[in-house]
This record gives sequence, C-alpha cells and structure tokens, in this order.
Amino acid sequence: MTAWIDRRALDLFAIEHPLLLAPMAGSGGSALATAVAHAGGLGAIPCASISLQTIEAEVKTFRTATSGARVNLNFFAHAPITPTGEATQRWLDRLAPYFAEFGVNVADLPKAGGRAPFDSAMCSLIETLRPEVVSFHFGLPVDALLDRVKATGAIVIASATTVAEGRWLQERGCDAVIAQGYEAGGHRGNFLTDDMATQPGTFALVPQMVDALKVPVIAAGGIADGRGMAAALCLGASAVQLGTAFLLSEEATTVTAHRNALRTARDDNTAVTNVLTGRPARGIVNRIMREVGMLSSDALPFPLAGGPLTPLRAATEPDGLGDFQPLWSGQAGALARDASATEIAMQIAERAARMLGI
Amino acid sequence: MTAWIDRRALDLFAIEHPLLLAPMAGSGGSALATAVAHAGGLGAIPCASISLQTIEAEVKTFRTATSGARVNLNFFAHAPITPTGEATQRWLDRLAPYFAEFGVNVADLPKAGGRAPFDSAMCSLIETLRPEVVSFHFGLPVDALLDRVKATGAIVIASATTVAEGRWLQERGCDAVIAQGYEAGGHRGNFLTDDMATQPGTFALVPQMVDALKVPVIAAGGIADGRGMAAALCLGASAVQLGTAFLLSEEATTVTAHRNALRTARDDNTAVTNVLTGRPARGIVNRIMREVGMLSSDALPFPLAGGPLTPLRAATEPDGLGDFQPLWSGQAGALARDASATEIAMQIAERAARMLGI
Repeated sequence: MTAWIDRRALDLFAIEHPLLLAPMAGSGGSALATAVAHAGGLGAIPCASISLQTIEAEVKTFRTATSGARVNLNFFAHAPITPTGEATQRWLDRLAPYFAEFGVNVADLPKAGGRAPFDSAMCSLIETLRPEVVSFHFGLPVDALLDRVKATGAIVIASATTVAEGRWLQERGCDAVIAQGYEAGGHRGNFLTDDMATQPGTFALVPQMVDALKVPVIAAGGIADGRGMAAALCLGASAVQLGTAFLLSEEATTVTAHRNALRTARDDNTAVTNVLTGRPARGIVNRIMREVGMLSSDALPFPLAGGPLTPLRAATEPDGLGDFQPLWSGQAGALARDASATEIAMQIAERAARMLGI
Repeated sequence: MTAWIDRRALDLFAIEHPLLLAPMAGSGGSALATAVAHAGGLGAIPCASISLQTIEAEVKTFRTATSGARVNLNFFAHAPITPTGEATQRWLDRLAPYFAEFGVNVADLPKAGGRAPFDSAMCSLIETLRPEVVSFHFGLPVDALLDRVKATGAIVIASATTVAEGRWLQERGCDAVIAQGYEAGGHRGNFLTDDMATQPGTFALVPQMVDALKVPVIAAGGIADGRGMAAALCLGASAVQLGTAFLLSEEATTVTAHRNALRTARDDNTAVTNVLTGRPARGIVNRIMREVGMLSSDALPFPLAGGPLTPLRAATEPDGLGDFQPLWSGQAGALARDASATEIAMQIAERAARMLGI
C-alpha cells in the first residue's frame, strides 16, 4: 500500500491511489472503469448519453468484474434550452455549405442527440443501484433531486472551472470538488460563467481552489502521466482525475477517427469550441472548428448544435476523418499511451509516488 | 546549500535556487533584481522600455548591490510593423468615445510608446556590459545580432509558448528555453503563431517541452508559491520563472492602480488582450478590455496600440483606476504577497524544497 500523504480522497472513495477516471461519454464504459478500478483508482461510468437500461447493465458488469469496487456514476446537470425557430434556422444556414457538399437533405436531419440532464427517472435508478459516488457536470441538479441522491448515502462530487464555482458546489454539500483547469479535454463544467476568456489553467486554479475550500480538491486538466500527478498533488490536490491519458487504451471505446487524431496530438492543436455540441468543450482542432470558428454565436444551445452534424459525420468518419465530430482531448493528448488502462493508471500512480518520495 | 536534483539551470546561471525573476517592464528594475539575487535566484532587468543610459546605470547598480551576481538583461525581438493610415484611423475611431468622455484632443495624441526591438546599439551595449545572461521575448533577433550576443559569451534564453517555438529556439542555439504557459501574466512570447485559441497551459506545456528539448526548460505561468515551484519541478522543469509573485513586493515599481487591482485579484479575472499594446498579453480585466473586447482586430500593431491610450490613462490613474492601462498579472495574482522580494523568493524556494524532500 502506497503511503500517500493526503488520505482524504483515498478514504472518501475507498481507493488505493488518488486517481479518478474522468467520465467520458462515448469513449469509456464499464470496461475502462473496471480497468482503472483494478489499478486501485476510482472507475466512472458516464451516464448522460446512455439509456437507463444500459446504465443498469454497465453498473452490473462493473460490479461483477471488480468484486464490488466503488463506482462513480456521472450525469449532466444542465438546464435544457429550447431554441427559437429563427436560431435553429441560423445554425442550419451556417451549415448549409456542408449539407450541399455531402448531399445532405435538411428535411432528413435527425432531432437532438442524447445528453439528457439528470431527472427523476435517473434519480430513481440511483436509489435502486446505490452507486457509492455520483458526479455532476454543468453544476448540480435542483435541490429536490440532489436531496434524493444524498439520501441514498452517495458521495456527491462535481466540476468547478473557477474558485467561485467551487465555493458554490461546496456550499450545496458536495463532498469533493473537481478543479477543472482550462487544459482539460471534453466539456468544460462551467455553470456560473460562460466567459471562456477568463477560465483559469490547472496550474493556477488548483492551489487557489485548495486555499478557498474545506472539501478535498481533485485536479483535472492536462494531467496525463506520473509527472503531472505528482505536480497536481504538490499544488495541493487530494487526487487527480484523468481522461485523455486513457483515450488510446485498449479498454476505451474511442472511435478510429478519434484515435487517429490523438496519435498525432500536439500541445498546440486543441481548442475550446461550442460548435460540436453547443457548449464549450476542448478537442483536437478539426475542419468544422477551423471553418465555423471555435466559439460561434450561431451554434444551437447544448446539446442541439450536434444534431445537424450527424449526417456530416456519417459521411466522413468511414474515411477515418474526424472533420465533423468531437475529437475531445485535453492539451496533454501527446502523452496518451496505447496500452491497457490498468497498466497506464498503475504506472502513473507509481511514478508519482516515486517522484514524491512515497 | 539546498540539494536540488536537476542542477542544469543552477550551474548555467550560477544560482542557489532554480528560480528566475521574470523581467517586467514598468514593474521591476535593479532593486527587484537585486532582491531576488539576494535570495539565491537570478535577477532580471527589463531593457525594452528604457534608454541605453538607464540600462547601463541599472546594471551598475545591480552589480554593486549584489557584489557581481549574474544578471539577465531582457530584450524584445519583435519585427516592428508600420500600420497604414487607414488602420491608424480605425483604432482612433474605436477609441473616439473615450477621447470624447475624457476631453482628449486627437491632434495632441503622443506617438508610439517605447518598447523598441533589440538593435545594433543595444547589442553594442551588451558587448560593453557583458551581462552573463541575455533573454529575448517574441522570438530572437536576426542572426547577425544574435551571433554578436553569443560571441560575448552570454547565455542566451528565450520564451516559447508552444513546443514548436521551443524547438525553433533550441535549433538557433538557445541555452535554455522558458516554457511560458497560458496562465502567465504580461506579454505572451508567441512568435510562430498568433492563435490564442490553441495556446497550451503550463501544466500541459512543460512536460511536453521537456520531452521535446535537450536544453533545460524553465517553467513560467501561474507559478507564485512553493507549491507551484515544486509542481513545476515535478513536471520536469529545471527552474521556474516568476513575475506576478513579486508584483506586490516592496522592491517592485508596480504603480498604485496596478497594486490595487492585484490586491483583489481572483483566479478568474484576468484575460489575454491585445488592446493595451497590440500584442496578446495577460492582465486583470479592466474597462477597456471589457468594452473593446479582449482581442480586437482594430488594435494597432505592437506597441502602437498603447500610444493613444496614454492620455486616457493619465486622466484616470490619479483616481487609482486602472481602466486604460495594463494591469499585467498571471492567473495566480491572488497568491502574490506584500513583502520583500528576497523574503518571497526564499520562502517559495524553501517551501518547494521541503515539499520535494530536499
């Protein structure tokens, strides 16, 4: 057993190493969660884009494979926005050249695309499944739902992109706060601000969050190897949450176009964009981000912006191109390795422990 | 003597602690450099905005006060751009409402504002003064000048905001590279790219730079206490460069409006803007940044955008307002302390050493 100095996160999650798997809708399910749990970290199952039946099956698979390790079920807590017809038309107009290029008939476009906010039915499932950890992104659900989750005894954690968001989460009873630096891949968890110009990086955010909060802080964003884990713990984090580090792992369900992009990732080829889903998220720069612009006021609100992209993705993905789909990655994508997630997690934790003289 | 593990930067700069003072035009001169040198770090004198005579006097003062410690003279290496009359008019038009508000007569506006690029006269001064370290921002000067600097025996270092820029600097003979993360205050050193959307944060940049380069990497951006210094060394940096940490120190020449802003700095109230000088630089968000926009295509090229702001600053600064002037700060401004720079530097280095078990 490694003698990590700050045991708060270890005790809270009953894990051996202070390392959490970031929930990654589309790229990680029970297999990836199991692999990280086998390494002594906390596995997570992203639940926002899958059905209640699938959530139940995934949890069962995880629990069987890990002999009952603690699991983190992740949900989105956004307030859905219904756009005006005018806003919808503006986004379709913006995408019209692509529809023409790929022969897409606008009348055939699919409606929205998954990513439902946490609701009463999901809450009932929590009450049945009793996951040890429930995490939220984009803030927290309304009090009535949050109270029900807490009544199950679940540990509740959520993402904060600023100290102000961290305080807000702590005041509402979160047991730990994920400090999500600007380097992080995928959706930014921001909910008190939409201003991407002022979002702090991991290096500045973590110590200021630690100074402001009483609950343990989990560092996320740009951490993808043992050096990063050791550095985050030096900054005062009680644990780290890693996603990009596992995107190329055997157990990840990362699609081919996404894997291709990750294999040539650089420090300077990701950006935060809202054109893929309607909310700011970091991914490897692709054609639609470059051409429509990273942050477009034309993009429909989350998650609706992504719907009309579905046929464009379908037309290009078979060629291995990621031109019209999310290629989520943090800024440390170049550090992601092609190995088993258990091995990746163990090597990261062991190297960090060695560096810190543990 | 502290037993830092990676001695490359210590030996290169003949310092006791792997801590460099960031050159900060307007906020730090020989007094601040001396204070940091007294703590066992490397002092720096920003030379881009002062006359040759002042540079000479500053170096003399520093050398006398430190009994000949090594000194880092910092210069800008940008290629000046002469704007068209149309571009100049566009910027004046953009600022016209402010001129009206404060009764500024456009005919009375001052020309540019200092910040000259490194030239032959400065190079001659280097040949005379023989500083042990010469650093450049915005790339490197032309070969003929760089060769003359290197012929003096000076150690040459420069800032890179991406791994590509780091490689470029190493190829041209830099003895060490400053990895300037997106959290950093003041001017971004970017020179191969203008794209602020893809600039990596310190956490992601440092390890990737370390992996790519043979020369020592100096981490900069968001580092303002012992935790940050320890974390940067974990990421593989051979040393750290700190600026914001010293902005409130007794020896800094930071003006009152700037100090006032720093005393209420938060993790999420800085942004990268080009409206204050024409080049992207991080500062505490003030009125002109908020109203004109962080990155404006109307801003004149560096350093000319700042000229027309001079009378607006003069009209507001006496009231302690920083509405129209640079309030440079990294994202860790809230960690800056009001103490002597020697004490600040020593406490940072000692805490980092303790954390790393040194």
